Amino acid sequence: MLVHDLPTPALVIDGDVLDANLATMAAVRPGAALRPHVKAHKCTALARRQADVGHHTFTCATPREALGMAAAGLGTDLLVANEVVDARRLEALAALDGDVMVTVAIDSTATLDAAARAGLRHCVVDVDVGLPRCGCAPGEAGRLADAARARGLAVRGVMGYEGHLMMVADRAERRERVEAAMALLRAAHDDVGGDVVSAGGTGTFDLHDHTGITELQAGSYALMDTAYGTLGLPFGPALSVVGTVIAVKSGYAVADVGLKALGMDHGNPSIPGAEVWFCSDEHITFSNAAGAGAGALSVGGRVHVLPAHVDPTMALHEIAWVVRGEEVVERWTIDLRGWG
Amino acid sequence: MLVHDLPTPALVIDGDVLDANLATMAAVRPGAALRPHVKAHKCTALARRQADVGHHTFTCATPREALGMAAAGLGTDLLVANEVVDARRLEALAALDGDVMVTVAIDSTATLDAAARAGLRHCVVDVDVGLPRCGCAPGEAGRLADAARARGLAVRGVMGYEGHLMMVADRAERRERVEAAMALLRAAHDDVGGDVVSAGGTGTFDLHDHTGITELQAGSYALMDTAYGTLGLPFGPALSVVGTVIAVKSGYAVADVGLKALGMDHGNPSIPGAEVWFCSDEHITFSNAAGAGAGALSVGGRVHVLPAHVDPTMALHEIAWVVRGEEVVERWTIDLRGWG
Repeated sequence: MLVHDLPTPALVIDGDVLDANLATMAAVRPGAALRPHVKAHKCTALARRQADVGHHTFTCATPREALGMAAAGLGTDLLVANEVVDARRLEALAALDGDVMVTVAIDSTATLDAAARAGLRHCVVDVDVGLPRCGCAPGEAGRLADAARARGLAVRGVMGYEGHLMMVADRAERRERVEAAMALLRAAHDDVGGDVVSAGGTGTFDLHDHTGITELQAGSYALMDTAYGTLGLPFGPALSVVGTVIAVKSGYAVADVGLKALGMDHGNPSIPGAEVWFCSDEHITFSNAAGAGAGALSVGGRVHVLPAHVDPTMALHEIAWVVRGEEVVERWTIDLRGWG
Repeated sequence: MLVHDLPTPALVIDGDVLDANLATMAAVRPGAALRPHVKAHKCTALARRQADVGHHTFTCATPREALGMAAAGLGTDLLVANEVVDARRLEALAALDGDVMVTVAIDSTATLDAAARAGLRHCVVDVDVGLPRCGCAPGEAGRLADAARARGLAVRGVMGYEGHLMMVADRAERRERVEAAMALLRAAHDDVGGDVVSAGGTGTFDLHDHTGITELQAGSYALMDTAYGTLGLPFGPALSVVGTVIAVKSGYAVADVGLKALGMDHGNPSIPGAEVWFCSDEHITFSNAAGAGAGALSVGGRVHVLPAHVDPTMALHEIAWVVRGEEVVERWTIDLRGWG
């Protein structure tokens, strides 16, 4: 099957670019130095590729992601890097056993209570390193770890996500601020103990050589998007949504890739060689059709639309097609979608 | 079951508000004067409510929506108000028969060819009335209708979506521009013939008394969203995404409703009484927790998040829960998602 035969909108992964991205990251952060974040792709087939290049520990954002990873045989060491208080879901995580290890994040007495009551056995203390989201104050981490151990949980260490620094445009400034944020995390770790100091993301993947973290939680590096693409990182865009042109007018054309097929929180997607005017539910209107290639010049032709944000784009599709050039070589299910 | 018992993020429809919205619209545009657009909700259970108040003709944006509506017994008169060139999907539409009638939009020789080859029997000519998207030039509509009839298709009339005018803030200006756009559509209809003149949307639902259209394609009116809410329309917000608070900090709180649970193309959602700071994949950070109600003040409490755009929000969820007050009374599957 060729790209031209796919029903559209079709989520397409360039297998060669994906391979290169995985190799580039594995060279900088090999094995357990990277804990790939599956929220970026929600796809166990892609996670298996990450395991193939040496990463056997994974980060999840939701219980469903962790349960799906475990079911796929990828549960050696799963970190739910998020606070969960839903008893039913926590119990489902606690029921995983045998070869599977699940660790949850806690950042308050309430989240510790929920984890302990559900029978979870491993946690990390989530520390606020500057992003106004979850995480306890660095000075509270030690007390929370003591309380967790008193409830019978093994405290594996700390995590702290410097998400507010991912898109700092200047690399030197980004490095400096990451180091300051990680000083907070190290101080908390001194009080907490354990082997794990987990942090970071794609935007800071190579700025942690002196920060003392033991593992990086990057996810977007595998597929990339146009937002991260502005940072000059050594990862290429592997993901596009292929559309069929359904109208060609004077000065613009329309394809069947709309905002229901694209993560739109970072703004409009891109079409190389064209200017995107706007997206509707099931349409993209773009100008300079000639620059977008011959496919954009006739009804029935194909265009590649590059999403501004990978993570929510993946979550909108049931299937991803892996291509090598124009040939479709694999069909992957986006099997970690939803919340269960 | 109560709202507090739902697993979150939970898509929740206020049944009383929905009923009121449906009644308000049916009073202005009863029966076939409204062709409700199912792209706004992608839910046959909700479409059945629209049928219950008298609307038995429906608008669809995708073949999957039409196929799902037909399978649910709601296929009396389905208009796929969009251009489709996928032969397999067009053949699936053509294969619907018996009590089902399917009409597709055409706006070019290429889209007519695709419909005719697949065996479709009914079409409307889609006319460009000012939105730079699909639709032929008004002056070409008659020739296209002749060509369609020569290929054996019944041409039921015209459609023309004035989508560029939905959000014109001033009502008098909106009316004036709608009337000018519809003059183009009427001129095309004079050349095309047929019984159908289909146009409009929620933002222009009561501006068509003198435009000559026979039916309005509104969809958003049923559930509404905060973007349409700025227009002062007589429809209330029926849709929210209920989240569980997972962290309470000094000055802000965090709930588990992130951008993967929200259509984000119109910007951030709202939380009544609070200020939304930002959304992450699985989190919403909001300030003034006290204003958002007691639920926002403690971990495990609940908050209602109002999406800025209904249509893509529905497409992100598998289930919608219908509530009356705090009681959950129905569970609806969002069964028209994806593209098939």
